[in-house]
Amino acid sequence: MTASRSFLDEAAALLGPRGLTQDPDLLSPWLTDWRGRFTGRALALASPADTQELSALVRLCAAHRIPIVPQGGNSGMSGGATPDASGTALLLSLRRMNAISEIDTQARQVTCGAGVVLQTLHEAAEAQGLRFPLTLGGKGSATVGGLISTNAGGSQVLRHGSMRALVLGVEAVLADGQVFSALTPLKKDNRGFDLKQLLVGSEGTLGIVTAATLRLVPAVAERVVIWAGVSSLPAARALLLHCEDAAGEALEGFEVMPQASIDAVRDYMPQARAPLEGRHAWHVLIEVVADGASAATLRDRCEAMMEQAFERELLEDAAMSTSEAQAEAFWRIRETVPAAERARGPAVQHDISVPVERMPEFVETTVPMLEAEWPGTEAIAFGHLGDGNVHYHVIAPSVTNGPAWHAADGKAISRRVHDLVTQWNGSISAEHGIGQLKRDELGRLGDPVALSMMRAVKQALDPHGLLNPGKLL
Amino acid sequence: MTASRSFLDEAAALLGPRGLTQDPDLLSPWLTDWRGRFTGRALALASPADTQELSALVRLCAAHRIPIVPQGGNSGMSGGATPDASGTALLLSLRRMNAISEIDTQARQVTCGAGVVLQTLHEAAEAQGLRFPLTLGGKGSATVGGLISTNAGGSQVLRHGSMRALVLGVEAVLADGQVFSALTPLKKDNRGFDLKQLLVGSEGTLGIVTAATLRLVPAVAERVVIWAGVSSLPAARALLLHCEDAAGEALEGFEVMPQASIDAVRDYMPQARAPLEGRHAWHVLIEVVADGASAATLRDRCEAMMEQAFERELLEDAAMSTSEAQAEAFWRIRETVPAAERARGPAVQHDISVPVERMPEFVETTVPMLEAEWPGTEAIAFGHLGDGNVHYHVIAPSVTNGPAWHAADGKAISRRVHDLVTQWNGSISAEHGIGQLKRDELGRLGDPVALSMMRAVKQALDPHGLLNPGKLL
Repeated sequence: MTASRSFLDEAAALLGPRGLTQDPDLLSPWLTDWRGRFTGRALALASPADTQELSALVRLCAAHRIPIVPQGGNSGMSGGATPDASGTALLLSLRRMNAISEIDTQARQVTCGAGVVLQTLHEAAEAQGLRFPLTLGGKGSATVGGLISTNAGGSQVLRHGSMRALVLGVEAVLADGQVFSALTPLKKDNRGFDLKQLLVGSEGTLGIVTAATLRLVPAVAERVVIWAGVSSLPAARALLLHCEDAAGEALEGFEVMPQASIDAVRDYMPQARAPLEGRHAWHVLIEVVADGASAATLRDRCEAMMEQAFERELLEDAAMSTSEAQAEAFWRIRETVPAAERARGPAVQHDISVPVERMPEFVETTVPMLEAEWPGTEAIAFGHLGDGNVHYHVIAPSVTNGPAWHAADGKAISRRVHDLVTQWNGSISAEHGIGQLKRDELGRLGDPVALSMMRAVKQALDPHGLLNPGKLL
Repeated sequence: MTASRSFLDEAAALLGPRGLTQDPDLLSPWLTDWRGRFTGRALALASPADTQELSALVRLCAAHRIPIVPQGGNSGMSGGATPDASGTALLLSLRRMNAISEIDTQARQVTCGAGVVLQTLHEAAEAQGLRFPLTLGGKGSATVGGLISTNAGGSQVLRHGSMRALVLGVEAVLADGQVFSALTPLKKDNRGFDLKQLLVGSEGTLGIVTAATLRLVPAVAERVVIWAGVSSLPAARALLLHCEDAAGEALEGFEVMPQASIDAVRDYMPQARAPLEGRHAWHVLIEVVADGASAATLRDRCEAMMEQAFERELLEDAAMSTSEAQAEAFWRIRETVPAAERARGPAVQHDISVPVERMPEFVETTVPMLEAEWPGTEAIAFGHLGDGNVHYHVIAPSVTNGPAWHAADGKAISRRVHDLVTQWNGSISAEHGIGQLKRDELGRLGDPVALSMMRAVKQALDPHGLLNPGKLL
């Protein structure tokens, strides 16, 4: 402990009392991921004030060979920001680096610190008549740095892409403490490898993102949210193709939920009103938006789109939001599905993708397969059909000892789901990243060539393995 | 030569007579870049038929430590596909790998070999009612592999992005002969580092791109091309902002040319008719397109947009194409500028970008500066104002010995332009890449942190330096 003692003394001198603590009460909330699946220990919690302090801190860590676990809002889904149990790593909070610089309304971009919370960014953009077009359930805690490091997705990827597509510039501290500074928001720059995109989605294993320049889009002037009931997932896919043709780029969201998820939401949140009276095998939420220029005709266009869909028998029933409050109420049902599903009892969850056009067949084939192989389980899939990405839960039989089931059947089911996804040329992580949750599965199922390239790049940029060890690779 | 003799014998056995030649007549057209700035030598020209052959060939090269220079259409702008003078490298043509697989019209994507020529790809997409939204002057020779390896730009980047944004999947042969196979066109995939994008724009130094899955967009149902005359580059920028607001995503091109370039085109191509009668400090080409859904109203919207622009005094004069033939005639003038400028005599050319909003000021500041520092020269800039990217030529004084001027003043002028761009936080290569043309300048002016990251990644993935040596780094 003398080595780490001398490190801690130097770090304390560098960061001051606000910047470093070993107080267990202050540390403990950040040592367990928000879903409670991983708990670790840490040498201390460092919260540097700016990039320069962080750079000096990382140099110190490099000199003392202290591993670093970067953390934003601690709302990741794969344990990527939770240290291991050894207690040898420094937990690094980026939350103090939360400045938002001036928003450039002409160029439609914003530069901000890694610690800026997504909701705060939304509000800052709105105040300037603009919009940051990425949102997700954890927006009240998720930070820009975490969103970049995990290449976060959400419910607007269909039109705007995931985080990767919204990052124009990045600043990061590398493993040796050097600052990679690429915030310049050039539209075109062909000076070699795209190091920016290499950092996006690397889960803090190649560098620590400290700031970013992000793309903004015009504010939404009008939106229509449509709730439709359809008879099957292939029918939902046919409706998706119809909406893509009819609405073009105005189509921002296309989410599917089985009837069972709607029932779960009504059990979980009894005051929720179902948008449709009847029961349908699948429910679809469709979001169509317009900025200033085309707002006036949006509702008419949506009505024409839905009339045609009825004529072509693409759906059984539909309701269209008539107010912003109703639009939000529709979305609230969709956003409550994950919590409502969790409340149904022990389950294993999977965040998977296959090619968009194959997703209906994948779900229809594998759900009965899994339910037959593990009698008493219930498999359900919901989410971003437009992206070929669903959250695929398998719920334990009703009378079950949760932890024991997780360790035995749960684990076996996850392997089976991941095997199936891999057979279908899909991804075992569509938007939640690998972290520590799926590291072994990536090692087992990932393309060996890709894995060896990743290991070579990791070794080249972090030769001592100090950046977020035990994650991803 | 015995080592290379034994390599050549093994390569000949592997590739057969169509796949390997040392015939100087067959080799020579590919040993000089199309602009005639670089000439090299090569051991032989290899033209493998498919990825498997190429993989075996690269293994053989690795075993014999034979460097490889990959080449597509040999129409690059930076000498990136021309071997050095040593004659030790194998010149590798991807041109035989030119299959286009079935186009998926629902998912709007195509998978094709690296050797597919851009124009062929355009035609294949059009035959299916779709469009590949990237085009450039060399479309009759440029190949998909070359476009990916150089992250090519062109005149539709404003809306659709450069090649990077259009690549959904990549297959590549790595330095040791292994095949990195990531053609799966998943919309969302968060399994670690973005190796795909690491290969895009790496100029064949990290791997040899053999195939790709590319994004297609709906065919253009209607387009309007507007030619406008404006009094200054800041006025052109104001017009750009107006068009961005009024046309939104329908705006696909915004190109600027000074009067001198229009004069040069008329000298070079006397039959060309200028779209406007009068002379204007700057000419602007604006392209607005619509797919099926919004084609009917496109012309009305463009007229309203231009009326408003006149009312706001954003331009001096304008003409709107009334037929597809006229739209093409407008574009032909723009596309003839580079050749017409080259015909004016010795010049140094630069492909540069600065933040979009600063480009007018950059040109207005630096043009008189350069012309004063090198009396008798003429500096002109034309191109993609909407992307913050112009082609910046400095033409030698009229009576000049070309080669001598290039070696002395030309070189000094280029250094000066690159210094200025760097001071303005710009890029010395916006869309043409680094190749051998700008390698030393990148070394001189590039961010040392970024350069050391690139060198580390290169060393990790190509430890013997066999892939396109002497390019980029």
